[in-house]
Amino acid sequence: MSTASTSASGNGRGSDAWSRSWTHLRIDRRSRGHCRVTFDHAPINTITATTVAELAELVGLIEQDGDLNVVVFDSANPDFYLAHYDVENDPGRTAALGVGPTGLPAWTDVLVRLSRAPVVSVASIRGRARGAGSEFVLACDLRFASRENTLLGQFEVGIGLVPGGAPMARLARLAGRGRALEILLVADDLDGPRAAEYGYVNRVIADGRLDDEVDAMASRLARFDHDAIERTKSYVDRVTLPADDELSGPIADFRELFARPAQQAQWARLQELGLNTDSDIERSLGRRVVESLADA
Amino acid sequence: MSTASTSASGNGRGSDAWSRSWTHLRIDRRSRGHCRVTFDHAPINTITATTVAELAELVGLIEQDGDLNVVVFDSANPDFYLAHYDVENDPGRTAALGVGPTGLPAWTDVLVRLSRAPVVSVASIRGRARGAGSEFVLACDLRFASRENTLLGQFEVGIGLVPGGAPMARLARLAGRGRALEILLVADDLDGPRAAEYGYVNRVIADGRLDDEVDAMASRLARFDHDAIERTKSYVDRVTLPADDELSGPIADFRELFARPAQQAQWARLQELGLNTDSDIERSLGRRVVESLADA
Amino acid sequence: MSTASTSASGNGRGSDAWSRSWTHLRIDRRSRGHCRVTFDHAPINTITATTVAELAELVGLIEQDGDLNVVVFDSANPDFYLAHYDVENDPGRTAALGVGPTGLPAWTDVLVRLSRAPVVSVASIRGRARGAGSEFVLACDLRFASRENTLLGQFEVGIGLVPGGAPMARLARLAGRGRALEILLVADDLDGPRAAEYGYVNRVIADGRLDDEVDAMASRLARFDHDAIERTKSYVDRVTLPADDELSGPIADFRELFARPAQQAQWARLQELGLNTDSDIERSLGRRVVESLADA
Repeated sequence: MSTASTSASGNGRGSDAWSRSWTHLRIDRRSRGHCRVTFDHAPINTITATTVAELAELVGLIEQDGDLNVVVFDSANPDFYLAHYDVENDPGRTAALGVGPTGLPAWTDVLVRLSRAPVVSVASIRGRARGAGSEFVLACDLRFASRENTLLGQFEVGIGLVPGGAPMARLARLAGRGRALEILLVADDLDGPRAAEYGYVNRVIADGRLDDEVDAMASRLARFDHDAIERTKSYVDRVTLPADDELSGPIADFRELFARPAQQAQWARLQELGLNTDSDIERSLGRRVVESLADA
Repeated sequence: MSTASTSASGNGRGSDAWSRSWTHLRIDRRSRGHCRVTFDHAPINTITATTVAELAELVGLIEQDGDLNVVVFDSANPDFYLAHYDVENDPGRTAALGVGPTGLPAWTDVLVRLSRAPVVSVASIRGRARGAGSEFVLACDLRFASRENTLLGQFEVGIGLVPGGAPMARLARLAGRGRALEILLVADDLDGPRAAEYGYVNRVIADGRLDDEVDAMASRLARFDHDAIERTKSYVDRVTLPADDELSGPIADFRELFARPAQQAQWARLQELGLNTDSDIERSLGRRVVESLADA
Repeated sequence: MSTASTSASGNGRGSDAWSRSWTHLRIDRRSRGHCRVTFDHAPINTITATTVAELAELVGLIEQDGDLNVVVFDSANPDFYLAHYDVENDPGRTAALGVGPTGLPAWTDVLVRLSRAPVVSVASIRGRARGAGSEFVLACDLRFASRENTLLGQFEVGIGLVPGGAPMARLARLAGRGRALEILLVADDLDGPRAAEYGYVNRVIADGRLDDEVDAMASRLARFDHDAIERTKSYVDRVTLPADDELSGPIADFRELFARPAQQAQWARLQELGLNTDSDIERSLGRRVVESLADA
């Protein structure tokens, strides 16, 4: 996850680093100023330790690249943008990621650095983005969602956990106290229109036009002056980004609560029900998470 | 208003304290984790010193109850959720309430402690909630409003007062500067859809489905892990709750301005017009408050 | 721009200062408590050094006038509310404005003092308000927009600049991080409904009813108690207004970036395309700003 190897290249697009082989990402540098990143981790785009490591490397490349203005993140799977985190039955893999350059745990570090990077990050959302997947889109600068085909949610409280990537800090600012508490505590899915009503996404776009409209915005941004983008964004950052001390608590809570026997048992029931596979429960996880409760 | 008598009971649901006889409230402990509180103070659910004292006691019970996850507040009167404060022509009754455990005046103390309590408080709004009634719903964590039958407002500026329960602090954060200033200064009623558009409530629900939908959410929340709810809420609290020093000024302003002869006279005219009774002016108070102005 | 000459008059409405001849404004003191200011600077209501000087004088009058409750700002031109800033090919005129009473540069000073003034400022928006025109409406307390005939935007990033009047600070708080970044970085126009969806304006009003509805609100506000308005507004100010140190950076960035040869050349191309005139490009500036890019 070190970015040292890429900082040596310095000049962005020409760097071999961008075109190396990625495992869970497809990267298309459409122009000097415009990059498209497509999540492609069958079957349902779960986020694993490998995804985190690759995103950390990618964010390092983005930070180093003075030519780049805009990065669009979309999904190869129209049903799942980013399902949620999968520890792959081996929490050691995630623990081994350690901390990133900010001193925060690897996943939180990726989110923080993406938000602060001197480019415009855009989530073009089609399908489901829950848990860490929702945390990822919240860390992007702009969020556009398919009107007909989006489900967003933080289901963690439904399984006895605190969302670890600190979406509390971001949702509280985007959606306001009442709506943030509803999203986080009721822990159910929001469809696209509800997400837009709540400020969870910028707005919805008809599914058939989502790709073209986001691409037009990105192509426009790619032509703008990098310095004007960077400086203007930095003023918004000052007002809107969480302080670092809001970000380290939730991941500690997540780990503490996840280690409880009741939560281990609930997680096991969820896996029996089809978690991490292209299953019915993954398609309706917000509503059906209650089926994993001990009293279900 | 002391909570000492209830803290001794310690164990929540089994406590006699919950089932004591209440004057302005009906309390239904539906399950270990779920409580329904119904405002029932004929004819129009005004808030009086008695209501404040009972709510203070209730919040004390809520704070002590480690089993409780969610409290829903609704109204026995479909036209009036909580009309507004009524001093009952005797400001001494309110003054005698003194300060609460936070050191803030009793009403402000109830609101602050409800917001911080380790449960999910839900306002299920049908009918009118103005002045202190609006302040109460703003202090709840979640607000759902009947689409067809809701009127919310802070009419205080219309009678020459500063809203005393500090809705400025809460509305500014929920609705943003422009909309908060409109609500507070124009001081007119908002119907449900406008309230949702402005972030004053989470969202509207068709009147015929409001009770069932809120009940389903509460039943879901009641089954979740208490610790996960408490910790997750606390992270949102840090970002969204007003500081104590934002809360003590408005009540002092309210008292100072209310004591002016012009405001006493305006209040008397409002009472002649039907304030505190099930009257036409109470049904359209936001619009008709101007009828009490000296130049009317 | 000194307010000294007006502070001597002291008593507001009777002052000759209000009825002096204005160059870019028409001022109609409708009642003791209610003033209407109409932007009237043909052909497209650009903001120039003269406009800034007049607005500074007007804000001084507003600050001094204990009778005034509400000031409505509208436009004599239904197509252009306030087009944007025009340096009139002589940056020296703007530089000569110096700093205002807050110690901030003249334009920023006008915006800051308007926001803090003890009256309700209302932007009644019909037509286009971009760049500094958008900054002006953002500094007003309330913003109502014609549903059918409004275009708002900050096009500065599209010409390689940072918006100088610090709309980053205001939009970030009104619209939230994601929508503020979209407005500022994509730098395209928003129509009325989109602006309302994003919190950029309070709400839209059907064009045919805009004037009457805003006038009714202002007439209502004019009758209310001045002290109640001033004190209630001040509590919202504390929570929502930017700190001074958020406001001085952007204007310095604007000047630095504007002085670059590439930006001077882009500005010249915009002028060739019809900037500052009643032209097609002014009618679609958000979309067409790309035509001035070096690669266009």
